[in-house]
Formats: sequence, C-alpha cells, structure tokens
Amino acid sequence: MRESPISRFDVPALDALPPDLCERIEAVRAKTGFVPNVFLVLARRPDEFRAFFAYYDALMLREGGLSKAEKEMIVVATSAANQCPYCVVAHGALLRLFGKNPRLGDQIAINYRTAEIGPRQRIMLAAALKLAEAPQTFGEDDIQALLAEGFSRDDVWDIGGIVGLFALSNRLAHLSDMRPNDEFYNLGRADSRPE
Amino acid sequence: MRESPISRFDVPALDALPPDLCERIEAVRAKTGFVPNVFLVLARRPDEFRAFFAYYDALMLREGGLSKAEKEMIVVATSAANQCPYCVVAHGALLRLFGKNPRLGDQIAINYRTAEIGPRQRIMLAAALKLAEAPQTFGEDDIQALLAEGFSRDDVWDIGGIVGLFALSNRLAHLSDMRPNDEFYNLGRADSRPE
Amino acid sequence: MRESPISRFDVPALDALPPDLCERIEAVRAKTGFVPNVFLVLARRPDEFRAFFAYYDALMLREGGLSKAEKEMIVVATSAANQCPYCVVAHGALLRLFGKNPRLGDQIAINYRTAEIGPRQRIMLAAALKLAEAPQTFGEDDIQALLAEGFSRDDVWDIGGIVGLFALSNRLAHLSDMRPNDEFYNLGRADSRPE
Amino acid sequence: MRESPISRFDVPALDALPPDLCERIEAVRAKTGFVPNVFLVLARRPDEFRAFFAYYDALMLREGGLSKAEKEMIVVATSAANQCPYCVVAHGALLRLFGKNPRLGDQIAINYRTAEIGPRQRIMLAAALKLAEAPQTFGEDDIQALLAEGFSRDDVWDIGGIVGLFALSNRLAHLSDMRPNDEFYNLGRADSRPE
Amino acid sequence: MRESPISRFDVPALDALPPDLCERIEAVRAKTGFVPNVFLVLARRPDEFRAFFAYYDALMLREGGLSKAEKEMIVVATSAANQCPYCVVAHGALLRLFGKNPRLGDQIAINYRTAEIGPRQRIMLAAALKLAEAPQTFGEDDIQALLAEGFSRDDVWDIGGIVGLFALSNRLAHLSDMRPNDEFYNLGRADSRPE
Amino acid sequence: MRESPISRFDVPALDALPPDLCERIEAVRAKTGFVPNVFLVLARRPDEFRAFFAYYDALMLREGGLSKAEKEMIVVATSAANQCPYCVVAHGALLRLFGKNPRLGDQIAINYRTAEIGPRQRIMLAAALKLAEAPQTFGEDDIQALLAEGFSRDDVWDIGGIVGLFALSNRLAHLSDMRPNDEFYNLGRADSRPE
Repeated sequence: MRESPISRFDVPALDALPPDLCERIEAVRAKTGFVPNVFLVLARRPDEFRAFFAYYDALMLREGGLSKAEKEMIVVATSAANQCPYCVVAHGALLRLFGKNPRLGDQIAINYRTAEIGPRQRIMLAAALKLAEAPQTFGEDDIQALLAEGFSRDDVWDIGGIVGLFALSNRLAHLSDMRPNDEFYNLGRADSRPE
Repeated sequence: MRESPISRFDVPALDALPPDLCERIEAVRAKTGFVPNVFLVLARRPDEFRAFFAYYDALMLREGGLSKAEKEMIVVATSAANQCPYCVVAHGALLRLFGKNPRLGDQIAINYRTAEIGPRQRIMLAAALKLAEAPQTFGEDDIQALLAEGFSRDDVWDIGGIVGLFALSNRLAHLSDMRPNDEFYNLGRADSRPE
Repeated sequence: MRESPISRFDVPALDALPPDLCERIEAVRAKTGFVPNVFLVLARRPDEFRAFFAYYDALMLREGGLSKAEKEMIVVATSAANQCPYCVVAHGALLRLFGKNPRLGDQIAINYRTAEIGPRQRIMLAAALKLAEAPQTFGEDDIQALLAEGFSRDDVWDIGGIVGLFALSNRLAHLSDMRPNDEFYNLGRADSRPE
Repeated sequence: MRESPISRFDVPALDALPPDLCERIEAVRAKTGFVPNVFLVLARRPDEFRAFFAYYDALMLREGGLSKAEKEMIVVATSAANQCPYCVVAHGALLRLFGKNPRLGDQIAINYRTAEIGPRQRIMLAAALKLAEAPQTFGEDDIQALLAEGFSRDDVWDIGGIVGLFALSNRLAHLSDMRPNDEFYNLGRADSRPE
Repeated sequence: MRESPISRFDVPALDALPPDLCERIEAVRAKTGFVPNVFLVLARRPDEFRAFFAYYDALMLREGGLSKAEKEMIVVATSAANQCPYCVVAHGALLRLFGKNPRLGDQIAINYRTAEIGPRQRIMLAAALKLAEAPQTFGEDDIQALLAEGFSRDDVWDIGGIVGLFALSNRLAHLSDMRPNDEFYNLGRADSRPE
Repeated sequence: MRESPISRFDVPALDALPPDLCERIEAVRAKTGFVPNVFLVLARRPDEFRAFFAYYDALMLREGGLSKAEKEMIVVATSAANQCPYCVVAHGALLRLFGKNPRLGDQIAINYRTAEIGPRQRIMLAAALKLAEAPQTFGEDDIQALLAEGFSRDDVWDIGGIVGLFALSNRLAHLSDMRPNDEFYNLGRADSRPE
C-alpha cells in the first residue's frame, strides 16, 4: 500500500476486519497479486462491503449472454461518463485483459463511438449510456433495440443492472476520493508494444 | 397485486421463490399491509434481490446522525432528479410518515429549495443532488460544507451511500418500468385534510 | 390565510383591492372553499392580475378539442420541468379532479412517459415539453406530429398557448416564492384510498 | 405586408376583426408607420390578444425605476437565450432607439457580458437570464443581489414580470413561426454610420 | 481606432510590427477602409498571426463548392452558438454583403432554423452546429447526410474546417475580449431600408 | 502504417506531397520513430497543413512560463472534454513523457480534479476547461484568477491559445475520424510497471 491516502475516509487496518472480509481480501490478493483499493476503502463499513460485492458477483460473474469483455465495456463507458478515476482505471485494465486488446480500455473511456468494436457492442453501449446519463428517457424503444440486435431479455437486465451497480460504485468512489492502485494503469498493455 | 404489469420483465410467482425471499416478502406484507412492488420485481434475480436489500438495510436502517426523515429526503430529492416514478412515490410516502408532514414528499420531489425544511437539510440535499447529478464535481469542498453544518464524517458517508444506492435503484426501476403500488400515493396524507 | 408568508413580496389586504379583484376573489372562494394564493400574490399589481386571469380564462376555459384534464396535464408537466411548487401542487389537484384519477397528478409531475395516459396524451406532452424547455427547436415537424395524431390546428394553438402561459406563471411563482395552499395537496385524492 | 407568410397559422383579415383590435392596430400603424406582425398573428384569438397586450402595457408602459432601455435589454437578452427571431429583431430595434446606441441591440442579443452597459445593467441581466433559463434556481440570493445594487422591490417585480411575459411571448412566436417585419432590422441604426 | 480598448491584452503599435504584418494590415485597410480589430489584437504574437491568417485564407478564400455566403453562414451560426461578439458582428456584416440580403446576418445569428435560406443551407448548418457544439457525436451519419444533399467530400472538409477554425477564433476573441469595430454593425444593411 | 483507415477522407501518398510537407514528415519520423497520423491526415490540404503546424509550433514550442507538461495537460484535459480519441491518446503519451509520470495522461483525461497535480495546475485547467466548454462565460474574473496564481499575462495568452488550437484540432479529428497510431497507447508507460 502506498503512503498517500487511498480514500478521504479512514481505512481500517486489515487485522481489525471481520474474518469474512479478510478472507475475501486475501483471496483477491492471492489471485491478482495486489489488493485493489476498493476492497480496503469499502471495508470501513462491513455490511455495505458484503452487500456491494455480493451484488458485484451476482452480476459480473454471472454466466449469460454478455461476454466478460462486454461487461467491462459497460463499466468503463459509464464510469468515464461519470469521470470516475478508480472505475475507469481499474476496469480499463480488466477490459484490456478480457478483450485481449491493449487499446480497448482507453478507446471506450474516451469515446465508444470510434472504438474498435462491432455494431452489437455499439448498440449495447448506446443503451447503457442512456440509462446511465438520462435514465428518465430510457424506455421500451431502447429495450426493443437491444432485443433486435440479438440480446435476450436476461442480457438486457444484465446490461441495466451493471449500469446501475456502477452508478452506485462511481458515486462511492467520488464520495471517498478512491485512488486507483498504480498496478492497474499498465495491466494488459504489454502485448501492444510496437515491436 | 393489480392486473396491469408491475414490470416489463417477468415477475416470478411468490411460491416459486427461494424461502428466504418469501420470508422477507411476507414480513413486509405483515408490517405494511401490502407488498411493495420492488420486492416482486427484483425477485426475478434472487442473488441481486439479496444484495440489494442487504445494502438497503445497511444504510437505511443504520442508526446514525441522520434521521429517518432526512434519509428519505435524500431518496426523494435524488429520485425526483432522475424522474423515477417508483422511488418518488414510494419514498414520498415514507417521507410524509417519518417527517410527520403530509406536504413534505411533494415539496421535496418538486423543488427542495422551497420545501418546509431547515438550513441543515438544505445543505444536505444540495450535496446529495450534486453527487447524484454531477458526481465528477463532488469534492473536498462539499465534504467540508457538510462537516461545517455539523454532520459527522459517518453522516457524510451515509449521505453519499444513500445517493449511490438510489442511483442504482432508480436505474433498476427505469430498466424494469417498475410501477408504484397504488397504496403509496395516499399514505401519510391523512392529517393534512383541511378540516 | 396562514401565518407564514405566501409570497416574498407584500400581499395587499383584501379590503384594499379594487372592487373587480375582490369580486373575482370572492367568487373563487365561494366555488372552491378557499382562496388560492395566486390570486392574493398577483393582486399586488391589479393590472397584471386582470391581464393574467383574462389570459388564463381565454385559454383554460375555452371550449375546444382539448379536455380539461389534458389542459391540466400540460400545465403539470411543464411546471414540473420548471420545478414550480405552486403550479405543480395546485394544478396537480385539478388534474386529479378533472382526470378522475387520483394518481395522475403525481405521475405527470414525476415523469409523463410512464403515466397512465394514452398515446394521444403522450404525443401532446412531448410537444408541450419541447416548447417549454427548448423552444428554439420547436418547429413544423412538431406541428405535423400533433396534426397526425388528430389534433386540430386550434388544438395546437391551445397546447402552445398553455405552455406559454405557464412559462410566465412558473416564473411569477419563482419570483414571488409563491406558496401553494395546504388544501391543494389532498384535493382529489380521496377515491384512491386502498379499501 | 409582405407576400410570404408571417405566421404558420391563419392570420385574420383586418376588417374581420373586432373593433377594439382594429383600433389598437391602427393606432400602432399611425405611430410606427407599419403594423408589427405580432398584432396580426395574435389577432387570431381576440381574447388572448387583449390579455397579452394588457399585460404588455401594464409592465412595459409602467412608470417605475427601470428605464425604457433597461426593459428592452431584459426582453432582448432573454429572447436571445430562447433564440426567438421576432422578439430579438423587434425589441433589438426598440433597444437601439431607447438606448440611443445603435450597437446595443446586437451586443445584448449576442452576449450581454461584453455589451456597452454598466454594472447595474449587468446584474439586472444576470438575474433576468437566471429566471428565464433556470427558474428553479432563482431565489432569495438573487433578490438580494438586485436590492443591493439599488433596485427597489417594485423594480425586482418588474424585472421578473418582463422575463415571464417574454417567456410567454417567445413561445407564442416559436409556436406560430412569427416573422419579424423587415422594417425592424434597420430601425435605430442610422446614427451609427461611419462618417 | 477608438479610445476604449479593443483587447484586454496590450495591442502593439503598428510601426513596431514586422513588415509582413504591416503589409497585410495596410492591404486590408486599403480594401475595407478600416482595420478590423482582429488584425491588431492578434498582432501581439506575429507567428500566431501568420498561422491564423494563413489558415483563414486557405479555407475562406479557397475556391470550392461552398459559396462565400455559405461559408459566412457557418461562421455566424457557430460563432453565435459560442456567443462571440467579434465574430458574429464582423462576419454578420460579410454575410449580409455576400448573401445580398440585409437580414441574413441577424437571422442566422439568432436561429438558423427560421432564416431565409434553403434546405441545402439548413442541412449544412445543422451539421456545422453539431460539430461545433457536440463534436463527439459527429460521425459518419452526418457525413452521409451532407453527401446526400449534394455536397462533395471536399465541401464536407471545408464545412468542418471552417467550424474548427472558428472554434479557435471564437476562443481567441473571448480570451482577449476582442471588440468588434463600430463599422461592422451597419455594413451591408443599406439596401434593406423600407422605401 | 496499419491497414485499417486512419481517416475517413483520402490520405495522399507521401511521394505525392509537396517537398516541404515530406520534409516535415520525415523529420518527425526520424525523431519519433513513426509518423503520427495527424501529419498524414492533414496532408490532404497542404496549405491547411502548413498553417496548422505553424500555429502548433508557435504555441507548443514557444519558450515561456508554462512547462511542456503543463501545455500537454491543457491539451489532454480539453480534448477529453471533447472526447477526441486522437488528441487524448497522442497527447496523453506526450504528457506521460514530459510529466515523467506514467499515470498522468490517464488521470487528466478522466478527471483533472483528482489528478496528481498541484493547485497551480488545477487552477490552470479549470480556466482552460471553461474556455473550452463554455467560452461565452470566460471573462476578466478568470484572467484575474490565473494572474493571482502567478501566471503572467503571456502565460494566460498561451493557455487560451492552446485551448483554441485544440478546439480546432479536436474538430478536425472528429471530422476525419482520425485514428491514433498504436504506438501512442504505450509510450511513456514503461517506468510505471509494478516491479
């Protein structure tokens, strides 16, 4: 962990946390090699931590019609619309990894309309951004556009749910001034080196 | 339950639900006299249902510096900014009840600046709406304005957390075209009858 | 009249008003059972009072293709877009009464797109809100959409005129911090009681 | 009158109008040398015509703390914000005449912040544009800023009333596609000729 | 040159300028009869002056599918969207002259949708304003709409280039508080005198 | 050069270009190791190419009070506000290099308010973004805020000029659908590798 604060709120010491939170955090560290700051920042409130990651797992780990890369596209595009540093940097890394394209994270964060994606993803992101930015205008037409592209009703729910979850997540990050770990900035970029 | 749909997505039959969801729903019915539609609409996805209400309970039932009425003010003001029918109607009812003022729900939904509330609530709602509508501009100045008004750091987290939770909730309601129960429209209005 | 101010500008005593204003005010009181504050607030300027209510009568009492409920929908939807407490509360009451639906006032104020209305009303309100919120973009296409739905050219004028009149009315209410009478909050809600 | 239409709605023949409308129109023609199109376009609805011009006279001809040029500044600035061709062109002419400055109409229409006016007018127009464009944010602070600059409470009402009246007027002009008379474009520009 | 400042930055004396700048300025004076202030304000930075006017000449003097009046329409419409006094006043004059219509400058500045132009110009200005105001949404559809109207690909580049150049120019004018010369206000209006 | 198009407009062959353009392009290639696409895309119009890069050199290579990293911050922040892929990716690389901080490009692109910069840079970017996004509101107060922070009047001109130049540049990139070279994505990231 770096010296400079990862949150403007106090971050609890790992050994002061309830065992289930410790366990989750250590499992992440074992898998990823470091502890993403969101786990430490949210640990301040164990019940909210549990609920948040339960929701996260339910949507992001769910097997369904959306690929892992598509889910991360939704996260990155809507988090960029909210200018959320933590979510764009951390999920930009996941998007590079899952999408097997070292440019995709930056492209989706900057402007999905010109990113190296297909029409299916473009329609998905147009709907996602509408629900993120002007939810009161999201309606049956948007549902139908997604179904017409081949998304199932369950896929539509996943798209909307991910938008909703990161509407929450972005605001928690802004509230706490959550800092992205340095490690995220370069993850998944290696293969894009000009040889 | 009324004939017209309460969601544009299928709503599962109560007897097909996992026991813990049934239990929660029946407990609400016993207490309130009817089942708010959000429980039925979200039951389509049991894991997301559990996570959502766990988050809800963690924030909305938490004992802290915010009164129950103040929490509902945040919900109603930010949900009105998102033009979310379910959340404004349902939580407008709770605000009338907890705030013991039959006009408060409508006033906060229409324009909190002119509502029958004090400066503390006005500052709280200004910060909440900023985090809801322009989260990228929310920063240390907003935190300091809340602290200066006497809110604790934990109160600030509660305010931000509730804004975040209903940023999610509003989008789920727009996604599913969630209908408010008829019962909510009149709850808590009785004492405002002109005699 | 209640103790707390109904306007941030002085409100003249009834017995100091010109006879025609008194007469109009007493006629309203006889019919409604109370004096809506707009009559008292605008009485500060008798000539503007006369002109305002002459305009109001010319449009709102005019026999034409729009039903009374439809006219109130326009008032409520555009006044909600301007977040005008007086007009939303007072005309929400009229909308409940004329529309014979105790939920309609709240629904239209929150988000007309999901209200219990038909396609005719939805098209009418889309045009009305465009003229209210982005008048520079209102044009021949909008006129044609209304005509195609079956509105006559006189109906179109009525729609636009009502939008215009409440663009004025909302701003007078914001200028004067006009308070809605307590009586309005509950008018027309009785039949929605869950039995 | 020119061949091309001055309104997208039918314009009644002068000799078919009620005598009081004819009288008003002829009085304007006698004074101005031509009939401004607003009189002909609104004549389609005699009651609305009467109410509109009664309101107009009550505010714009009222003796008070605002100069005639200041009143026209409010009209031009708020009508330009609404991109209303008729009101900007017609009242830009009046502003040039009353303000005795042939550049003032264009300057206020384009950007009042850089116009050749003093701090009093700048504060007046800032308040007027706030009430015109974001009326829900107009409040006691804005009133106090005007009073601090030396405006009386009656002046404040005049400012707000004029903003309101042209919020109506602009929308009637957009509704009817009201054309400015050719004569208005050059009125009051003569003395600005480079010699 | 008038007494009041034409820029909030120092304006160099003509005789202190590099010879090529003097030459350009004197050529303009010889042709126009006065020195437009933009030449004096930008002369503060000779290299930027040279680059700016080289870009200007390359686009605005280029022979191509756009008429001189059409180019000025783009300048006036996009500069009005940015509320740039210098560019609207100066190029409004050029538009009146090149368009041989003394009303066109004001009409395009106020609202191009109702100006005395044809469908070709309306489509051109819709695309230009989109690129000026929401460039991130400008895309292949907009290109195709222009091509469908008969614009060549080189015309499309010209349209976009002019929008870009005045995006720069407007911001330089706002930066420096650049004042339009008095002479511009009346240029090209003479023939619109009502006879 | 990659197969997929770098512009939606034809890109001229290098050997068909005027010698001075070739020379400039080869000089860039020699220094950078590849030819940034902006040189190829703009080469379609040699005069505009020359003017653009002359302007670029005049501002970006000028010795003055702004550091090279600060200039790139302005470019990245305002280009991100316009969601311009080419400018954000290419100048994000330069910002990483000049700023000697591999995270800075992403941070400024996402949200400058939370980037690892000091108050001087934050004030500079607030002014730059105001001029980029709402130029009509940029005024003397903004100038004074920059001077108070220690920027000279020439620095202020540089800030505004760079904002203006990239207002142009972003729109040319959107117009042409200019693709960032793959090489830019990873430039300057090396030292941020987690060891």
